[in-house]
Amino acid sequence: MFHKILVAYDGSKGAERALDKAIEMARLTGAELVVLTVYRHHSMLEASLSMVRGAVERGRNLDSAMRDVAREAADFAKQRALTAGHDKVKAFIRTGQPARTIIATGREKGCDLIVVGSRGLGATEGYLLGSVSHKVTGLADCPVMVV
Amino acid sequence: MFHKILVAYDGSKGAERALDKAIEMARLTGAELVVLTVYRHHSMLEASLSMVRGAVERGRNLDSAMRDVAREAADFAKQRALTAGHDKVKAFIRTGQPARTIIATGREKGCDLIVVGSRGLGATEGYLLGSVSHKVTGLADCPVMVV
Repeated sequence: MFHKILVAYDGSKGAERALDKAIEMARLTGAELVVLTVYRHHSMLEASLSMVRGAVERGRNLDSAMRDVAREAADFAKQRALTAGHDKVKAFIRTGQPARTIIATGREKGCDLIVVGSRGLGATEGYLLGSVSHKVTGLADCPVMVV
Repeated sequence: MFHKILVAYDGSKGAERALDKAIEMARLTGAELVVLTVYRHHSMLEASLSMVRGAVERGRNLDSAMRDVAREAADFAKQRALTAGHDKVKAFIRTGQPARTIIATGREKGCDLIVVGSRGLGATEGYLLGSVSHKVTGLADCPVMVV
């Protein structure tokens, strides 16, 4: 019923639950699993906020560190799928606004299900604040499972 | 991976897509399917807004008509599951605020997945207006699939 499942994984506990459900769904349906870790790009912000020498360089270092953390998270998620016996799995990292990047990557890869973690905040708070999961369900053109 | 799946069905096109995904999920996992149609209770509102004789009676008639429509929708959904070859299906109707009634029924029946239709409105509109599906994903304590 699903052929390609995108799961957004950022290393949080909520994302880990989503990852495990996505792995189960992928195994059950025989779907390919696409792991996506989104990280924020900070260089330009840092550079524009500071006139001191080295700001751009520090921004680059920060970006590089964030990219490394994202890579590590994505690799962890991929390994988890492999350990669970599902080898149709690829892991990607992307930089950008989380919800829009998740949607864009899902479209680009031709995914027909997106799995995301809920905020983990109780009930109303999550709804009022507007979480990544709410944005994804609002923007997606395929089914979205919020775990 | 899921044992009891609740699908909210109100007769709309979006709910029909959700219903079909829920039936597929139920067949795939062997889960029981719980169809829920929520309708609004109008008698008290009608009665409180009007001092004219007969308002309560008219309210009762309106309720009765809405209940009949809900019953028909729930039965249609159940029949669709049966036709698809899934006989572990029950259909219920409830009155109340849609999102909260969906959540409460899911808890009461011990469901471990809730399937709802998205608003069908494009992207941002749906997100900003806050649909039933957004409320359900914000309030649920089990995974929610928005179709």
